[in-house]
Amino acid sequence: MTAPYLSISRRIRETPFTRRVEEAKVKSYTVYNHMLLPTVFHTLEDDYHHLKSQVQIWDVSCQRQVEIRGPDANFLLRKITPRDFSTRPTNRCTYLPVTDPNGRMLNDSVLIQVREDCYWLSASDNDINLWISALAIGANLDVTVKEADICPIAIQGPKSLSLMEKVFGVPIRDLNYFDVEQFDFATTNLLVSRTGYSGQLGYEIYAKGSQLALAIWDTLFECGEHLNVRVGCPNLIERIEAGLLSYGNDMTQHNTPIECGFGRMFTPATNFDYLGLSALNAEQQNGPRRMIRYLSIDGPTVPICSQPWPVYIKDNQVGHVSSAAYSPAAGTNVAIGMITSDAWHDGTVVQVKTPRGRYEAKVFVCSQNKRNTRKVNTC
Amino acid sequence: MTAPYLSISRRIRETPFTRRVEEAKVKSYTVYNHMLLPTVFHTLEDDYHHLKSQVQIWDVSCQRQVEIRGPDANFLLRKITPRDFSTRPTNRCTYLPVTDPNGRMLNDSVLIQVREDCYWLSASDNDINLWISALAIGANLDVTVKEADICPIAIQGPKSLSLMEKVFGVPIRDLNYFDVEQFDFATTNLLVSRTGYSGQLGYEIYAKGSQLALAIWDTLFECGEHLNVRVGCPNLIERIEAGLLSYGNDMTQHNTPIECGFGRMFTPATNFDYLGLSALNAEQQNGPRRMIRYLSIDGPTVPICSQPWPVYIKDNQVGHVSSAAYSPAAGTNVAIGMITSDAWHDGTVVQVKTPRGRYEAKVFVCSQNKRNTRKVNTC
Repeated sequence: MTAPYLSISRRIRETPFTRRVEEAKVKSYTVYNHMLLPTVFHTLEDDYHHLKSQVQIWDVSCQRQVEIRGPDANFLLRKITPRDFSTRPTNRCTYLPVTDPNGRMLNDSVLIQVREDCYWLSASDNDINLWISALAIGANLDVTVKEADICPIAIQGPKSLSLMEKVFGVPIRDLNYFDVEQFDFATTNLLVSRTGYSGQLGYEIYAKGSQLALAIWDTLFECGEHLNVRVGCPNLIERIEAGLLSYGNDMTQHNTPIECGFGRMFTPATNFDYLGLSALNAEQQNGPRRMIRYLSIDGPTVPICSQPWPVYIKDNQVGHVSSAAYSPAAGTNVAIGMITSDAWHDGTVVQVKTPRGRYEAKVFVCSQNKRNTRKVNTC
Repeated sequence: MTAPYLSISRRIRETPFTRRVEEAKVKSYTVYNHMLLPTVFHTLEDDYHHLKSQVQIWDVSCQRQVEIRGPDANFLLRKITPRDFSTRPTNRCTYLPVTDPNGRMLNDSVLIQVREDCYWLSASDNDINLWISALAIGANLDVTVKEADICPIAIQGPKSLSLMEKVFGVPIRDLNYFDVEQFDFATTNLLVSRTGYSGQLGYEIYAKGSQLALAIWDTLFECGEHLNVRVGCPNLIERIEAGLLSYGNDMTQHNTPIECGFGRMFTPATNFDYLGLSALNAEQQNGPRRMIRYLSIDGPTVPICSQPWPVYIKDNQVGHVSSAAYSPAAGTNVAIGMITSDAWHDGTVVQVKTPRGRYEAKVFVCSQNKRNTRKVNTC
């Protein structure tokens, strides 16, 4: 499929940063949570090299923060996920798979506890706020659920710490992966987390209101000039190398969190009756039929994966690929897919059927990045 | 804002007709219900003239059909809308505003009763299936809610009856506006309604499954060759002339159905406790603060309306414009907006502030099409 234009209308929401993104000559967008999300500025490869060597500021306003507030907020949140987050320290972000009564993935979110009875759930691409609101109404819970007026900014790349330190001072150094803390900014303070949708060092800032958000954005660029800072965006190549899954691409409402590799985040032995409990208990006992795997695909650069590509061993389909790109670091194509137990072992040789024909490929348990680091033994 | 490219991925779903749409050289898309919806083929104006004089086939797969089935289906549906559809004949489509507990628009849908305990709700752009499912779970109702495997095809334009008669025979002539009936097709039968998102004569076909859908699509083109049939799509200019509202553009979750002009569809005197009842009762008693209105805007062709444009009388803001385009039929720009009671009377002169400056404009109670037809007295 050739690249078409995107028609703009109010329904595809702009963000406080859209003008800045346009000034930086954004080439293409996707639509995420009814909002513009940039995908390419220079070229996919040029953006990739810059992200892996410098620092970028990303408009990730589309990571809408669903605010769940009130006496029943904790109870409601525990209903929607298999993960027991109640023992997590409040200065930690929590990855939260949201499941339906059949244990299928409804959302792939990150939870922050803002105050005792107030949480922000960073939503992936669907209107999970409608799901959470309606559950609360149906069960008559004392809680309010709304989309908060928060447009997150991501600061990603190896030089992100230098930039963040210039803006927020030395204490930012103490922020560990997935930590979230308040930091001073001008006359206010802001939530900052060490998170982001890349395999690089990175941070995310959560500011309330458009005006403050834009002031932060501009400050980041002023402070980052000497660091070769650029407007950037999540990069398809880099996120596949890093093994970061995308809801709607690599997993859908047809997959369980166990298939997605999140099974270690929750145990079957819980007394709390969350939505999906019995289905997930059964799957943990019997084992999943298929799981997320990472692939290297030989041959020339693969096209854009807009539909799942079947994966075969001889004539038997053993899964599909859902995201793929040529990786300069790997010197080959890298991919993410859902693979059945016949083929999910490390090093299994398979064939991937793309619109340009069959490619030889190999299945791995870990992503490209993890295979090339010391993390290889722990993944 | 200049036209950017749309990045394609599996998350932005293709339809059974995407290849046909690409072969017809689609120029641009929007994303609607996580799915590709074409917006321009030749040019917006050329598409417009063809739609108003010929017949077009549209891929409106993005009008996802939410299937609500089971003993409590009727009860659940009555909970989510102020409109009492229970007295409607089963061969009629029903326009259904979906409201939240504050009486605000959550969706702008059309309901079809498929069997006694089975309905399809044609959803506008949000995951209203999540809302409906979660209400059912929370209230423990005996009903299943799912996105049905149905990709609607629209046949729109003055020659649509000729084409439909060639495919479905003479009985199609008996279909009145908003009627829905079963018609034979090959060895099966199909639901066909006289509906569509244009002011032209038009039909929509609901086929289960991709294979059947594609067979219908191809049959329509074979039968329509002599009618100059084209692949088309909802046309911005034509839908504004016709006064067709767009959820996300002309109304959002901040508006009530009364503000949108749907107040006549429901009466406050109901015993059924739907979500939003007390808020809408109060608004019907006190009257709305603002309402949907149609505008003509003088001067040169307006740009694309990607953010609401404020509407003024002198220095007082009296509302905003949400959709606008140059209308060849009107010989001026036409628009849709939300206007407060100070300015909502027919013929009120206002100013619209666009990114290209202030334009003189006039407010009308009826859309461009209705002002030019005998319907002017009934609207």
